[in-house]
Amino acid sequence: MDNIEHIKELARSAGAIALGHFRNVTPTWKEDRSYITQADLDVQAYLREALDAAYPDDGIVAEENGLRKLPRRGDRTWVIDPIDGTASFSAGLPIWGISIALVEGSRPTGGVFYIPTVGDLFHTGNDGRVYRNDRPAQLRSPGPFHGETSLLIASRLHRHYTLSRDYPGKLRNLGSTVAHLAYVATGSAEAALVEPVYVWDIAAGMAMLEANDGTLVYIDGTPVDLAPLLDGTRMPQPMLGGSREAVAAFMDVITYLPGC
Amino acid sequence: MDNIEHIKELARSAGAIALGHFRNVTPTWKEDRSYITQADLDVQAYLREALDAAYPDDGIVAEENGLRKLPRRGDRTWVIDPIDGTASFSAGLPIWGISIALVEGSRPTGGVFYIPTVGDLFHTGNDGRVYRNDRPAQLRSPGPFHGETSLLIASRLHRHYTLSRDYPGKLRNLGSTVAHLAYVATGSAEAALVEPVYVWDIAAGMAMLEANDGTLVYIDGTPVDLAPLLDGTRMPQPMLGGSREAVAAFMDVITYLPGC
Repeated sequence: MDNIEHIKELARSAGAIALGHFRNVTPTWKEDRSYITQADLDVQAYLREALDAAYPDDGIVAEENGLRKLPRRGDRTWVIDPIDGTASFSAGLPIWGISIALVEGSRPTGGVFYIPTVGDLFHTGNDGRVYRNDRPAQLRSPGPFHGETSLLIASRLHRHYTLSRDYPGKLRNLGSTVAHLAYVATGSAEAALVEPVYVWDIAAGMAMLEANDGTLVYIDGTPVDLAPLLDGTRMPQPMLGGSREAVAAFMDVITYLPGC
Repeated sequence: MDNIEHIKELARSAGAIALGHFRNVTPTWKEDRSYITQADLDVQAYLREALDAAYPDDGIVAEENGLRKLPRRGDRTWVIDPIDGTASFSAGLPIWGISIALVEGSRPTGGVFYIPTVGDLFHTGNDGRVYRNDRPAQLRSPGPFHGETSLLIASRLHRHYTLSRDYPGKLRNLGSTVAHLAYVATGSAEAALVEPVYVWDIAAGMAMLEANDGTLVYIDGTPVDLAPLLDGTRMPQPMLGGSREAVAAFMDVITYLPGC
């Protein structure tokens, strides 16, 4: 990602816009029966304009209102979730954030995620490392499951999955998919189970996982190709993200019940 | 709770002590196979000394090292969890906090909870209201379940409970039981399912729920008496907290599988 300091600055400024609305918004329902707020729209407009001005040849894909601008030349697309975790934002829960990723062709080559309430800023560096608050961070070391092993779960786990009672560890759901992937990528949890969502919900986190030699794959083990998702298509399957060892281990204890 | 401003100040100072250790600690295992860190010990020592000095006649019960000081006179006991959410704290996850409650006889009559990373401070006011960051906040209005209904779950939901797939809403687990009860008490989620834990994991949140006309009850519907838990006894059953309507509704969709 070129000029990572610029993208981090955009994320921080966008976060300040969102914080100005936090706990002072009334959400409305979108067609897909999820929430949207004025904060999502304001942040998206800000980021769209800033990225358009700085990188006029690049494409832009963003969550709200089906925003899609194709690249004028080349194959670079900025993928934006203005507020990942709008439901939490609307409820006054603390974990939500600004997600900006760069996708080149079908691969996420850079990502920034900022959680304004906490001040946690995650980014991929041009040195190939992943940073949390400008300190490099790694995936957790793989190891056998134990009582403090953490799986960050999809918020509708009970409807679409069964999880073996033999898994001795903990379940967490902070309310933001990108936050889940970013915390896994920086070693705060072993893995994340992601329900079938959209490219803006995963691109930045996927860039971080891959930069740290982790992976984000569909739950049947097939690799994720972002290119067919750039038009806003919902993913065909859930995903698991983490180290290769953690993903393989969680595949053994999670069963997906499609169509439920 | 007398002198609530003093207790809030203690929580803030304790939070600063904990923040000084955050993401710079190595946890060790306790006998019950949960984590403890130097931060838990430092915060507990600070709060114990401060409460002892200010309220010498009162009892103190705290999580670490079986601390229990009986009241010298009267029936007031300060119940402390120096860091509620030690596993999250140890992992570098953001939601954990300092919990201070006052129990008079068997009832929690006041509570303060502070999440230093976010800056959220919850307290029961002497006017009978519940405050988040000094602004009064209420429980969510009861209503039928929908896609954005939030249940804050126990972290081992998969081992001890089944949750009906007919429940259309979301599951969250932020990593701190008191945080769950405090966010429910201030309207950010409908209800919290609490696994059988200890008095310091619930006392402050229970005070907030009750002050806002909500409830925290055992999952079979029996009321919670804190008196027999003040010696550090683990609760006999899980609990549900929220408005009376939400608790009743969630009792219908959650099944507890004891002994698993």
